Amino acid sequence: MRVSPSDMAFADRLADAAGAAIRPYFREPHGLEAKDDASPVTLADRAAERAMRELIEQAYPDDAIIGEEYGVREGSSGRAWVLDPIDGTRAFISGRPIFGTLIALVADGWPVLGVLDQPILKERWIGVVGRPTLFNGAPAKTRRCPDLAKALLATTSPALFDDGQLHAFEHLEAGVMSTVLGGDCYNYGGVASGWLDVVVEAGLKLHDFAALVPIVEGAGGRMCDWSGDPLTADSIGEVIAAGDPARVEEILEALDCRGHG
Amino acid sequence: MRVSPSDMAFADRLADAAGAAIRPYFREPHGLEAKDDASPVTLADRAAERAMRELIEQAYPDDAIIGEEYGVREGSSGRAWVLDPIDGTRAFISGRPIFGTLIALVADGWPVLGVLDQPILKERWIGVVGRPTLFNGAPAKTRRCPDLAKALLATTSPALFDDGQLHAFEHLEAGVMSTVLGGDCYNYGGVASGWLDVVVEAGLKLHDFAALVPIVEGAGGRMCDWSGDPLTADSIGEVIAAGDPARVEEILEALDCRGHG
Repeated sequence: MRVSPSDMAFADRLADAAGAAIRPYFREPHGLEAKDDASPVTLADRAAERAMRELIEQAYPDDAIIGEEYGVREGSSGRAWVLDPIDGTRAFISGRPIFGTLIALVADGWPVLGVLDQPILKERWIGVVGRPTLFNGAPAKTRRCPDLAKALLATTSPALFDDGQLHAFEHLEAGVMSTVLGGDCYNYGGVASGWLDVVVEAGLKLHDFAALVPIVEGAGGRMCDWSGDPLTADSIGEVIAAGDPARVEEILEALDCRGHG
Repeated sequence: MRVSPSDMAFADRLADAAGAAIRPYFREPHGLEAKDDASPVTLADRAAERAMRELIEQAYPDDAIIGEEYGVREGSSGRAWVLDPIDGTRAFISGRPIFGTLIALVADGWPVLGVLDQPILKERWIGVVGRPTLFNGAPAKTRRCPDLAKALLATTSPALFDDGQLHAFEHLEAGVMSTVLGGDCYNYGGVASGWLDVVVEAGLKLHDFAALVPIVEGAGGRMCDWSGDPLTADSIGEVIAAGDPARVEEILEALDCRGHG
């Protein structure tokens, strides 16, 4: 499927709407609906997803919607909008402006368009298959990483790995320069913009990673699962993002120790 | 020692100068001095500390300076300016705008004034013994935490703990709602502003924690070491920040398991 300019403009509108819904709740101790028992982050999450779903239902009634908060609406077009209104819940509730809204367009199972939006800092990455990724309107480029021993690696939390995954991750970690924790989706923006070399995570849902694939790949990087296969709607959530595709084989080899621990 | 309004205004000037020195290096792949082999973060660190030291040497030639990059200059006034130009090196190199410049004024071993400045977001906490902490000029207040089981806990990285400390931290972690990783000094700003309940770290140097003490305490929180003692220039770097002083005893009890592992 070809992503049209109007799809891209529409994705921008979705991100604008989500950001407008989220901003009032950030760093607000009681949220805006004090009558509701839900936390500010839950209220923000729901408000943002509702805003995006309304726009999609109006503009593309035949497209499916897969949202973190409100689940699946079936479609008939072969296209699905995959929405994670607030990726990085803990960052949000900690007052760190490095959470993100993730919006993906998935066509026949393949992520073809992705938006990563940071609504507080007004930072936005947009990636589309076959096009250069944009960061705030300017091309984003991953950086080369000639030597994995000098790589900067990120993962949100080792607690998200099972024992075998943790063992594999620590094996990779031992071979890189430095590891930075926290960060959620913002780390993948960092790979796309050449600030970070590698992100390795597990346990991600489709709404956590779909948007990131076209963003990282359109910036010159590679995203795949821990077997080196492309990420699709059927992937199990073991995710690698590498700024320099030339390092992917070494990353896979380092991770391939779960059975040999 | 009483902190004078001119000390506070001067600390503001120091933070302004550090920020101006740091900003050009953030997210710059090659730094500004390509002839130098140092990394952008090292260049930024040094430039910021130089800028601050020059101002101190001019304004307070009898005060000592203890800087992360350029070491100790002895003084004769009983006062020392303790400088960490970039706390959160990994955040800085990852392109995350949540690192900070830390400036403390320590009098006879006691931190009496602290600045935590985020120069990209232009966010600044200032704490002075006996005065309310300010965040961007407005009073910052910690939040109450009636139940430790609902606390949001932060630590930069479990890798900074030794085995006994890690065991103790995990014991505490098991009793709170959620833990967020990464964050460095920004977490303590989060405690002061009521976004986070507890930060527990170890291995901190004086320049990592001195500025944070008056900030957290002036916002209504409590800072102490893992034995519950106040943090001074002689502390060994085991640090607790609690937004609600009523929870400190429970935090200490949870951490007090290193000998009983």
